[in-house]
Amino acid sequence: MASAQSVSGVFAPVLTPFDAHLKPDRKAYAGFCRWLLGQGAGLAIFGTNSEANSLSLAERLDLLEYLIAEGLPAARMMPGSGACALPDAVALCAAAAKAETAAVLMLPPFYYKGVSDDGLFAFYAETIERTGSAALRICLYHIPRISGVAISLDLIGRLIGRYPATVVGIKDSGGDMKHTRAMLESFPGFRVFCGSESFLTETVRLGGAGCISASANVNPAAICNAFQRAAESGAAERQAALDTFRKTLENFPMIAALKRIVAEFGRYPGFARLRPPLTAFDETRTRDLIGRLHALEFSTPELAAMLSSHSEC
Amino acid sequence: MASAQSVSGVFAPVLTPFDAHLKPDRKAYAGFCRWLLGQGAGLAIFGTNSEANSLSLAERLDLLEYLIAEGLPAARMMPGSGACALPDAVALCAAAAKAETAAVLMLPPFYYKGVSDDGLFAFYAETIERTGSAALRICLYHIPRISGVAISLDLIGRLIGRYPATVVGIKDSGGDMKHTRAMLESFPGFRVFCGSESFLTETVRLGGAGCISASANVNPAAICNAFQRAAESGAAERQAALDTFRKTLENFPMIAALKRIVAEFGRYPGFARLRPPLTAFDETRTRDLIGRLHALEFSTPELAAMLSSHSEC
Repeated sequence: MASAQSVSGVFAPVLTPFDAHLKPDRKAYAGFCRWLLGQGAGLAIFGTNSEANSLSLAERLDLLEYLIAEGLPAARMMPGSGACALPDAVALCAAAAKAETAAVLMLPPFYYKGVSDDGLFAFYAETIERTGSAALRICLYHIPRISGVAISLDLIGRLIGRYPATVVGIKDSGGDMKHTRAMLESFPGFRVFCGSESFLTETVRLGGAGCISASANVNPAAICNAFQRAAESGAAERQAALDTFRKTLENFPMIAALKRIVAEFGRYPGFARLRPPLTAFDETRTRDLIGRLHALEFSTPELAAMLSSHSEC
Repeated sequence: MASAQSVSGVFAPVLTPFDAHLKPDRKAYAGFCRWLLGQGAGLAIFGTNSEANSLSLAERLDLLEYLIAEGLPAARMMPGSGACALPDAVALCAAAAKAETAAVLMLPPFYYKGVSDDGLFAFYAETIERTGSAALRICLYHIPRISGVAISLDLIGRLIGRYPATVVGIKDSGGDMKHTRAMLESFPGFRVFCGSESFLTETVRLGGAGCISASANVNPAAICNAFQRAAESGAAERQAALDTFRKTLENFPMIAALKRIVAEFGRYPGFARLRPPLTAFDETRTRDLIGRLHALEFSTPELAAMLSSHSEC
């Protein structure tokens, strides 16, 4: 059973590569996961940047099973387990608990908007009760600009009150440090992850548990280093370097850019594919992106080898 | 194979009853569908008011199969087939096409916001190509206030241009008659359904195909009558009566109110259950709602008999 103490550090919302038929490319996926682990990042598989909601339930269950079978460590995984439908959320939480992953990262149900905290509490509570596993550890996932459904401080308080051993943390992708601070102050011991490394140093200094950020897919070592040394001298410089890199990425649609970077630097062209409704960008923008990264002396040591050793393409 | 001509009239986004374990109550569901058909309404199963996105894919496929096996007419069905994940949308479209339903009502993928028309086009196109059935008829589903993803006139034009025999209509739940009018004017022959009976008379007069409205779950006969006689004298009075009823409903959370009405007037208490994140309302509000309906001399002839003949409770 995962201990709450293992739920910390830097996690990448792992990109999901697709083959030419837009099916998950499992071997490249496992290779990419191994690379991330080697760089120091944990595996927040099935996140927003993973296109998790563009995967069927069966595909997600299969990918988790595959990674475990391939020997990737469940204790370093935090799979997304949110869904609009209660049975889907239960199936994902149950699979994660059975595999003894460090935790799950659980979106609220996101189709209906303007739902009450009572309704959201009921959804989480039913999921926890039906999963029925002492191994289940939930990090809530607050990303209202995409999900359209916010997780309020009141809801967090109610869930911790009722399920203190299960509801252990939150990823705050709200982009508002005041809100992050309020969570840290309101719930001592609750494991708060910032949703972007832009807030990393401040979050860690305030007692946060870590960072789960899109760019950890391509810049994991620097983010992990900044996390581990957040209290040491030079933190401001390390944060500034992270910010420069992040701002470069933010000139492009994020998920398409991340996949393009892995495709280019990992010499694995198929990695750039996205499932609709997301779309790849063209050669001109690709050159612009890659040129900017070269100007930053960006590199991805060992990535190409890790991907090619598992290549299906 | 369904003809495009059968895609017209008044459809109810059929409420989905749940048993005490929150599983779909299939017998009550079939009984309710029979009642709606008897009242003149078609069956837009798996709509927003059906809590369709609170059902797993397997549950939706099972319910469709069950209704067909029970002898309900596929030619009067327009199942929801939208999903965030391409494989799920394909599975739902394929099942509907195989059953030869009149059409499907297809949400865009709704997790990512701010996606491009190129991406939405690709999602619909991939779904159509992968379904690969000449029997497939798609009504698009524009409900941006809930889905968070609008369907633009440009996207409609591109889809009709590429798949003229497949993309046959749209449900416009945008609540803006100007937009409905623009669609009717831009795409002659395209089957435009208003998403609320508040716009019924005007939509029909402008050449619209019909109405797919929440309240058709409880007020189907009056809405069907107003639809059929929209060009006859007395239309304004019939529209006014629909509006009065609708405004009464709008004092309450819609889906909870509709289920409560069926539960009360159909003498089937379990019908009031909702899956989280939706919640039922309390006894005081229920008395308020039922009292208002009695004041309107509201009735649901034969509903109780239709539900009890299929009761599992």
